[in-house]
Amino acid sequence: MSITAEIICIGTELLLGEILNSNSQYLAQQLAKLGITHFYQTVVGDNPERIQKVLAIAASRSNLIITTGGLGPTPDDLTTATIADFFATPLIEHPQIWADIQQKYIGQTITANNRKQALLPQGAEILTNPVGTAPGMIWQPRPSLMILTFPGVPSELYAMWEQFAVPVLRSQGWVKETFYSKVLLYWGIPESTLAEQVNTFFTLTNPTVAPYANYGQARLRITARAATTEAAQALIAPVEAEIKQITGKYCYGADQDTLADVVGIFLKKYNQTLAVAESCTGGWLGETITSIPSSSTYFLGGVISYSNKVKTQILKVSASDLEQYGAVSAEVAKQMALGVKNLLQSDWAISITGIAGPDGGSVSKPVGCVYVGIADPQGQVEAIAYKFNPNRDRHWIRMVSVYSALDQLRQRFVMI
Amino acid sequence: MSITAEIICIGTELLLGEILNSNSQYLAQQLAKLGITHFYQTVVGDNPERIQKVLAIAASRSNLIITTGGLGPTPDDLTTATIADFFATPLIEHPQIWADIQQKYIGQTITANNRKQALLPQGAEILTNPVGTAPGMIWQPRPSLMILTFPGVPSELYAMWEQFAVPVLRSQGWVKETFYSKVLLYWGIPESTLAEQVNTFFTLTNPTVAPYANYGQARLRITARAATTEAAQALIAPVEAEIKQITGKYCYGADQDTLADVVGIFLKKYNQTLAVAESCTGGWLGETITSIPSSSTYFLGGVISYSNKVKTQILKVSASDLEQYGAVSAEVAKQMALGVKNLLQSDWAISITGIAGPDGGSVSKPVGCVYVGIADPQGQVEAIAYKFNPNRDRHWIRMVSVYSALDQLRQRFVMI
Repeated sequence: MSITAEIICIGTELLLGEILNSNSQYLAQQLAKLGITHFYQTVVGDNPERIQKVLAIAASRSNLIITTGGLGPTPDDLTTATIADFFATPLIEHPQIWADIQQKYIGQTITANNRKQALLPQGAEILTNPVGTAPGMIWQPRPSLMILTFPGVPSELYAMWEQFAVPVLRSQGWVKETFYSKVLLYWGIPESTLAEQVNTFFTLTNPTVAPYANYGQARLRITARAATTEAAQALIAPVEAEIKQITGKYCYGADQDTLADVVGIFLKKYNQTLAVAESCTGGWLGETITSIPSSSTYFLGGVISYSNKVKTQILKVSASDLEQYGAVSAEVAKQMALGVKNLLQSDWAISITGIAGPDGGSVSKPVGCVYVGIADPQGQVEAIAYKFNPNRDRHWIRMVSVYSALDQLRQRFVMI
Repeated sequence: MSITAEIICIGTELLLGEILNSNSQYLAQQLAKLGITHFYQTVVGDNPERIQKVLAIAASRSNLIITTGGLGPTPDDLTTATIADFFATPLIEHPQIWADIQQKYIGQTITANNRKQALLPQGAEILTNPVGTAPGMIWQPRPSLMILTFPGVPSELYAMWEQFAVPVLRSQGWVKETFYSKVLLYWGIPESTLAEQVNTFFTLTNPTVAPYANYGQARLRITARAATTEAAQALIAPVEAEIKQITGKYCYGADQDTLADVVGIFLKKYNQTLAVAESCTGGWLGETITSIPSSSTYFLGGVISYSNKVKTQILKVSASDLEQYGAVSAEVAKQMALGVKNLLQSDWAISITGIAGPDGGSVSKPVGCVYVGIADPQGQVEAIAYKFNPNRDRHWIRMVSVYSALDQLRQRFVMI
């Protein structure tokens, strides 16, 4: 049987816009990963008549219906009873569900409403919920139609999908292939330049290679389909290696890697320490570095030199240079980096000074003008000038300043 | 005519789970705010046949169809042509749209594909897009059916909805009531305690009052319905005043207010300056304070004292106290605050030292144990101990530490 799935999310809170429908994105991703096609997603409220209308439409065009929501113990949780009613099938109480609910409610008040969670249509099997009290069901109300129901709580949906639903879909022979993606992460190169460097890869069919950008960060997604995850990974590996050779130092990692991770790994490897001096980012660079739990092994701390007085008195930036070149200048960025390196006795130091906007820009130094200073263990110091898009907001300019600064340090390690 | 709306989001990227469908939540919220009922939301890919099937279903059960997506210049943008085809209506080129597109593309390559964006079904009016190139349309293909189309880019949808779609809906007489909400923001009080203090308000019907919590922050949402926004606001005002009197200092603001805003307003009012000393938050407090554009008028900067050496050598924390009480202690928090106040010559200083986890906790000082120090303009210093939930992750513990520290300063201003 060729399979076409369809997603139905049930809940009046979705129609009121009270919550974002992340469940449909999750299920869409999971179906795509398994190579199961789906053409439609529907949202409907907690209303039996309208749920039945949606079921009638879905059952006429798809043969795997996946629902979320409406399995809880309150009176507006109607999914199971409505589906049973639509297929004119009686509800049967499952003693093992009821026992499980009573077990999970020990020490809490249990009501008659809870008991309805133990009811499933005759012929349906339990889709176990390892997290919450509401189980789902696996039901074939007629030969070429399967229904899977899940609660609306995302963590319960995820656990049930991975542990119990995927094996059912595999056992039906519906999972022919697996899709597996690896995302290569870049900094310091625009999406268009990156795309030009690797455009010969875009015509590949398995794996496919596609560029995309997010918050100024270019990425390449390599996606392979194969019978198993391992086989898909084996298809990706040589393409990934070839792309990395072409794109060189701009690739800083893959998937969940962050610049702060990568920099931390290098600092640990060389047993070196880091300090920061921040002006326009106000502490964001330090915050990003210390988001890594083990950062205390290499990060000493830093100075938030928001006012000029802190720059001169604590970081020992020359008052005359500050006057002559301005606080946002290569000269001051260098002295800030050297200043904090000397003060904290670190191996490396990074400084950031710039104009994050919306005010404070001028013709020669517009909003988006940022200098990053890097002092190395030999005491050499360099400043890198950035001209970020002045139409971006303060949040964006400060964020790309932090990532650009981390990337400068990373590039120095890559060159070691 | 009684109105029932329906939302159709068009885009294969939604079926692949590549993006979250935030547009349907936005539209659901906006319809709820205007008192317009909608019962169904559908997602369909960029496929003319399936888009037409979805249109047929929607047109049979609703009389206002709102679509998003498929208005761009690429070959898979098919919404306008497919809707025209469904209602057997020819497409007409609108010279003013074409002129506007050419204007917006000055300096960029314009293709034949762009020109199709100037086509609308005969009889349709332009729904102006003040942001991007793709306009939408307002069309009554038959007497009791209206279709509004929007691009899939959220910022364009928002601008078009507010500026152009809402006036159209009002002019049709479909907006009978307006819903208006005000959210009161709290810090330092659990949701359950807050709810208990104001539980007599929960039975009100207009406005309604409902508590909710987000990231450890309790909130009260007051929602009124009335003919106009002004009338709704007038219903909210006395209830808000009464609630604020009961809940006292814990309420720090409303709606888009942040603790950093409120603290900044107080510092400006009293013409006072602030410095910070951060250990476990690594710069996050400084980053939060400097997210406010005018923060340079009161924020001098700070020291990220991640290592103990920075605490003793730069902040002049007593080495013996550090040894005796530990880095995470009331004693050290106080000395950090006084140290940075002396170093930067600020009026106020805030310090944070704690165990953010996942490692580093002990029986007496578990993960989530955080001390905030506050030094005031008179040189008085106090430390406040927090025991945040150790099961929360590093991100959560650091975040609530920053907000708790800002709130400590805010409370001192409220008491002035």
